[in-house]
Amino acid sequence: MKLTILGCYSATPRANTNPTAQVLEIRNHMFLIDCGEGTQVQLRKNRVKFARIKHIFISHLHGDHFFGLVGLISTFRLLTRETDLHIYGPKGIKEVITLQMKLADSWTNYRLIFHELTSTESELIFEDDVVQVYTIPLDHRVYTNGFLFKEKEGERKLDMNAVLNEDIDVAYYRKLKLGHDILDNKGNLIKNSSVTKPPVPSKSYAFCSDTAYNEKMLPIIEDVTVLYHESTFLEKHGHLAPRTKHSTAIEAATIAKKCNAGTLILGHYSTRYDSLNEFKEEAQTVFNKVLLGEDGKTFNFD
Amino acid sequence: MKLTILGCYSATPRANTNPTAQVLEIRNHMFLIDCGEGTQVQLRKNRVKFARIKHIFISHLHGDHFFGLVGLISTFRLLTRETDLHIYGPKGIKEVITLQMKLADSWTNYRLIFHELTSTESELIFEDDVVQVYTIPLDHRVYTNGFLFKEKEGERKLDMNAVLNEDIDVAYYRKLKLGHDILDNKGNLIKNSSVTKPPVPSKSYAFCSDTAYNEKMLPIIEDVTVLYHESTFLEKHGHLAPRTKHSTAIEAATIAKKCNAGTLILGHYSTRYDSLNEFKEEAQTVFNKVLLGEDGKTFNFD
Repeated sequence: MKLTILGCYSATPRANTNPTAQVLEIRNHMFLIDCGEGTQVQLRKNRVKFARIKHIFISHLHGDHFFGLVGLISTFRLLTRETDLHIYGPKGIKEVITLQMKLADSWTNYRLIFHELTSTESELIFEDDVVQVYTIPLDHRVYTNGFLFKEKEGERKLDMNAVLNEDIDVAYYRKLKLGHDILDNKGNLIKNSSVTKPPVPSKSYAFCSDTAYNEKMLPIIEDVTVLYHESTFLEKHGHLAPRTKHSTAIEAATIAKKCNAGTLILGHYSTRYDSLNEFKEEAQTVFNKVLLGEDGKTFNFD
Repeated sequence: MKLTILGCYSATPRANTNPTAQVLEIRNHMFLIDCGEGTQVQLRKNRVKFARIKHIFISHLHGDHFFGLVGLISTFRLLTRETDLHIYGPKGIKEVITLQMKLADSWTNYRLIFHELTSTESELIFEDDVVQVYTIPLDHRVYTNGFLFKEKEGERKLDMNAVLNEDIDVAYYRKLKLGHDILDNKGNLIKNSSVTKPPVPSKSYAFCSDTAYNEKMLPIIEDVTVLYHESTFLEKHGHLAPRTKHSTAIEAATIAKKCNAGTLILGHYSTRYDSLNEFKEEAQTVFNKVLLGEDGKTFNFD
């Protein structure tokens, strides 16, 4: 599991900071999460192949999370993309994108499939052979969802010493990896657990931005491997958090602790701060395993 | 008169090239022309004060000319702007901007005044004490206008030697600058032309992008001081120009020659080319006074 932060600052894009966008890869399946203005340039700078993006998840319709989407869709068209593109986001996202295509008289030559979200309960919105994606209803000024990416359990691993000790036909290896008991060449039952090891534990990633401190998300993200939780403010501006429906670094860390996250990544920093170190210091007073999101940074969780 | 090119490449924004946007200053009056994605960052990089932008002119609703507008409007709101903002552009521009403000539940605290254009004839769309702005109907795939900025004639200059030779009260200097004849302290008529010199010749700037080669614009831009004319293609790709309703460098130069422009600036280069020199070389086979538009470049025409 690999996460690349394309942008993790709030509000306005500036020369050296970018609004929210990130790329999550799970076993070579790639997901783009949010798409602030300039995301397509950030994708280029970080050498993400455009053709690999097939699913885009938009948390909410504030500009710093989606003003780059229409440009990316338009660039895909200019690059003569043919692959379907799925977009998951709040109701209204289809209208605003198609209105702009209509005004420009520029329709995509690939299929653009919108999955508009309206539920205020967590729901499964995507599933393939590797990943499930659930919404995480958040508490912000407009309708907002975080997203939980759950890797499915992988195959069991063959214990080759044990396997070779038995008289097992190679044709059965696949069945063993899938967890089945089998018969050996003499017709004896071979218990799966005696010749295989458990799969690598599956990982999960929760993206929670933008949101006020909100314990309702805890049951959804319990035991998550990596939690990205917004931390717009430091304690000295903590009084602004409830009013703007954002969180402080300490609130992000409290959520990480209460949901028993493996690691917390901070982000969505207000552009009023010059340095990020204080975000980490404040969060670590509550929860130890804190990483700072930074534009252009890649985190490997394997 | 000063022109800053924020971006002058066609189609998709890339790490080192920006879509169309430019800032024109005429006697301290500032105009933003087009607003591709990333324009607000380009404004910051080029140290243009956001508060000085009061009038934005959008040629057409293709993304590389206006996808940055909604973000700029939104940033003005975050910076607690209070000054009115006037936007001139094709019909539909108001709907698409207001839809995005509605979906984000983020309305501006300043007045946003749309001037939607529908005419296919040149019309006066802006006038103050210094500048007039006329549309230049262009020939593109969607409804498109160029813009002609005409500096108004300035005041006459006092010929101080001649003035001091006469018995003229200082109170009359202002009247002389405005071109009037006056009476001296003894009641004699002083002809204006005998004590003043003509004003500095007024300048004009024509922005023509995007467009196919189109001689219909010639009477509107006759004798223009500076012409910015798109040159998407070199001759080797000239067959693409009519099909996509764009121009070649030679076509841009032909328009410059036929309208008797003082200077031609090229731009809107296709991103397929690595170097810009050939654009200049090809244009100069037709018209000599050619400058290359480049992102971040400022031209002074005083």
